Parts: sequence; structure tokens; C-alpha cells
Amino acid sequence: MSSADPNCIFCKIVAGQIPAKKVFEDDQLLAFHDIAPWAPVHVLVIPKQHIATLADVGPEHDALLGRMLGLAPQLMKQLGVTGGFRTVINTGPDGGQEVYHLHMHVMGGPRPWAKG
Amino acid sequence: MSSADPNCIFCKIVAGQIPAKKVFEDDQLLAFHDIAPWAPVHVLVIPKQHIATLADVGPEHDALLGRMLGLAPQLMKQLGVTGGFRTVINTGPDGGQEVYHLHMHVMGGPRPWAKG
Repeated sequence: MSSADPNCIFCKIVAGQIPAKKVFEDDQLLAFHDIAPWAPVHVLVIPKQHIATLADVGPEHDALLGRMLGLAPQLMKQLGVTGGFRTVINTGPDGGQEVYHLHMHVMGGPRPWAKG
Repeated sequence: MSSADPNCIFCKIVAGQIPAKKVFEDDQLLAFHDIAPWAPVHVLVIPKQHIATLADVGPEHDALLGRMLGLAPQLMKQLGVTGGFRTVINTGPDGGQEVYHLHMHVMGGPRPWAKG
């Protein structure tokens, strides 16, 4: 499946219609720098396939989700983060999700966040 | 692999030596309520195997990581969370990791957190 939503900003990044500072790409996943970083290093990892939220996945997506999470430490190493990082997926309005294309925030470097 | 660290509090929960309010268990994963919740519903999902941090995984753990993430929406549904949730993994000191046994926070319900 490689369905795209024509109104989705992340699908447009996947399609190359909107530029992004890419840090990783393969046939399933794309990672790029967040345009409004909350941390010294802040990248987003997305599936190329349009999946709106983490609540929309099923067991058939386990492998994809595992690759997303497994990519996080690789990216942080690649980007020179040595002291630790945080991975966050926001789902739905109470989760603070802003773009409805599944994405994982990976935030590295000294802690700018309030709560450990 | 089912290696356990005798000094690890989460390994002790897996072994039944420390009680926990479990919400899910199978041969690989355990989920239980956080004893110091930051959200109306706050559970932790851990692998039963002792893996210290997300930075310690390799490609052989992708399937396990995928099951951890895929479990999050199932647990929130099971626990009556309808408005959204957040999944967080803290890795290393800069990530705010407090227990060095890989764990994913799944926090549901109206947003008590500062930043979306």
C-alpha cells in the first residue's frame, strides 16, 4: 500500500512537492528535521504510506512501527546525539496531534522539556 | 532471550516479585499502570526481556518494538480512552530516562501536558 492523501502536508513531503531537510529515506520510511524544533536535534520519522494516526494501525503494521522505533537510535547516532533522546507519538486531540499523518518525534540533546 | 537483571525493578515486576496493576501480559510484553501517573490513564509497556534502553536495540528487536507500539492503541481502547493519547520513550540522561529497562509511557485522557 502506498496510498497518499492529496491534502496531507507529509504526503506532499514524501512526494517531493514540499521541501524538507531529509536525514533518512528508504522505500517505507522518511525522516526529516522538524521545522519548529523543541530540542537541539528534532527529527520526525514518518511512514511514506498515509496512516492518519497510531489509533489506525493494526497487526499488519507491527513491522513498520518496529522499523520506525528502531530507526530512532540510529538517527540520533548519525546526528551526533550522545547524551540521550526522547521519542514521542501524539495521537488524536487529547494527545496533541497536529498533523494527521502518523509521525514520531525524535528529540535529542540536553533537556529542554519540563517533565522527565 | 529472557535475560533478567536482578537489580532491575521492572524485571522484578515481570518476575512477580514486586506487585503491579497489570493491564496486559503475553510471553513477550507486560503493561501495567504507572505508580505516579502524569495523565488520567498512564500505563507502561515493557518487554519482559531486560533491554536497558532504546539505544541498545538492533534490527532483531524490530518485531518486539512494533508490538509495543501497536499495543498502545489497543490498551487505550481497553481502558476507555477515546480522545487521544501520547506514547513516549525516554532514552538516556538527556532523554529523562529514570528506570534503565526499556519502557514506553502511554498516556491518555485530557491533556495535562504543556506542549503539543
